Amino acid sequence: MTCGTYQVTVLAFDVFGTIVDWHTSIAREIDGMDLGIDGAEFALAWRNGYKPAMQRVMSGELGWTLIDDLHRIILDDLLQRFGITGLDETQKRDLNKIWHRLDAWPDSVEGLTRLKSRYTICSLSNGNIGLLANMAKHAGLPWDCILSAEIFKKYKPDPATYLGVAKIFDIAPSDVMLVAAHQDDLDGARNVGLKTAYIERPHEFGLTRQKDVSPNPENTFHAASIVELAEILGC
Amino acid sequence: MTCGTYQVTVLAFDVFGTIVDWHTSIAREIDGMDLGIDGAEFALAWRNGYKPAMQRVMSGELGWTLIDDLHRIILDDLLQRFGITGLDETQKRDLNKIWHRLDAWPDSVEGLTRLKSRYTICSLSNGNIGLLANMAKHAGLPWDCILSAEIFKKYKPDPATYLGVAKIFDIAPSDVMLVAAHQDDLDGARNVGLKTAYIERPHEFGLTRQKDVSPNPENTFHAASIVELAEILGC
Repeated sequence: MTCGTYQVTVLAFDVFGTIVDWHTSIAREIDGMDLGIDGAEFALAWRNGYKPAMQRVMSGELGWTLIDDLHRIILDDLLQRFGITGLDETQKRDLNKIWHRLDAWPDSVEGLTRLKSRYTICSLSNGNIGLLANMAKHAGLPWDCILSAEIFKKYKPDPATYLGVAKIFDIAPSDVMLVAAHQDDLDGARNVGLKTAYIERPHEFGLTRQKDVSPNPENTFHAASIVELAEILGC
Repeated sequence: MTCGTYQVTVLAFDVFGTIVDWHTSIAREIDGMDLGIDGAEFALAWRNGYKPAMQRVMSGELGWTLIDDLHRIILDDLLQRFGITGLDETQKRDLNKIWHRLDAWPDSVEGLTRLKSRYTICSLSNGNIGLLANMAKHAGLPWDCILSAEIFKKYKPDPATYLGVAKIFDIAPSDVMLVAAHQDDLDGARNVGLKTAYIERPHEFGLTRQKDVSPNPENTFHAASIVELAEILGC
């Protein structure tokens, strides 16, 4: 395949776990704060609070809420659970923005840059726009466009997010491919007509917690990395 | 001044006229279509329809409408007025997307690239997200983030757009500077606390229609081009 010949126009990327390594980035920064807690455990606990928090919005219990604000709700709870009492408000606000300064997986920038030469590459993340823009600046992610649940006021896997990408670019859903390391995200996209590419991130939850990265034959592509996806697409 | 020492975090740019030369781009493409009309006149007429069309939305006569759709309403009217009858629906759709493929002013890409080295640079345009993303791809505009009236569901000069930039980045309005070639846009931004930089674009309406580019001392900066703004800011 020659780069650009595969029949989609826009590649939309999940970000947390797919493009950036949240677990390592957060564990390292927490460990560096010398709070007397295990950074890896704290990172996992923070991330584990994410889906239940979004569920409170999706169920209508909370109104529309940015991920920054959900992260803060979870953080306040975790600080109590982990017995951390010495942080002032400024430090808590700064810690909450740890999600703005996550590092990319080693292959992400090269892979995105190669794909950008022929496709429009955008984020499609539940993270808010400011978070994603700061992260892109920090990690050097060369997005053509930052798309976020914040634009659609719905979180993935709501169909409005996947179809929203097609609507924004005035193209058919089948002209968009979602790239993600999570099968449930890809299921949501495929169910409303998008193409899908799965990226293996076996260490998303840390080196000691192997993740199942088995292929799902329903996906259009399956790749070990963003660079491998670029290679599959001839870019 | 050293690049990055000036006390703002985000530079938000008006796009039509400030970053891209809509008049030359449209006039040239229309002239190339051999429709028997004057491309420059058509470009001006199309652009002249823009503010009255937005006014119909702002007054509530029309619901929220993307600029692509307003451009199409104006285009359909202009095709009648200019007596152009030979275009089919596909050609009209393509012609309407002329606004997605405008060329940058010669200094824009260099100036933005230099400013990007130390500031977050984003668009703040009434153009819709897809239009701005396609334009950035076409013209090589290196935005960190595409912000659009589409996100705020209000057009400039509504305060919600200027304040929306500060809100998205969780910073004070005074940490944002609007860069624009239109004093009314800068007035709107200054009135709600943003810094402002005026860019001279004396030929925005064509070489034969000189535009008043007098400085307004209320603006924070005044520059002949984006490159000159980068120089003023030491970037």
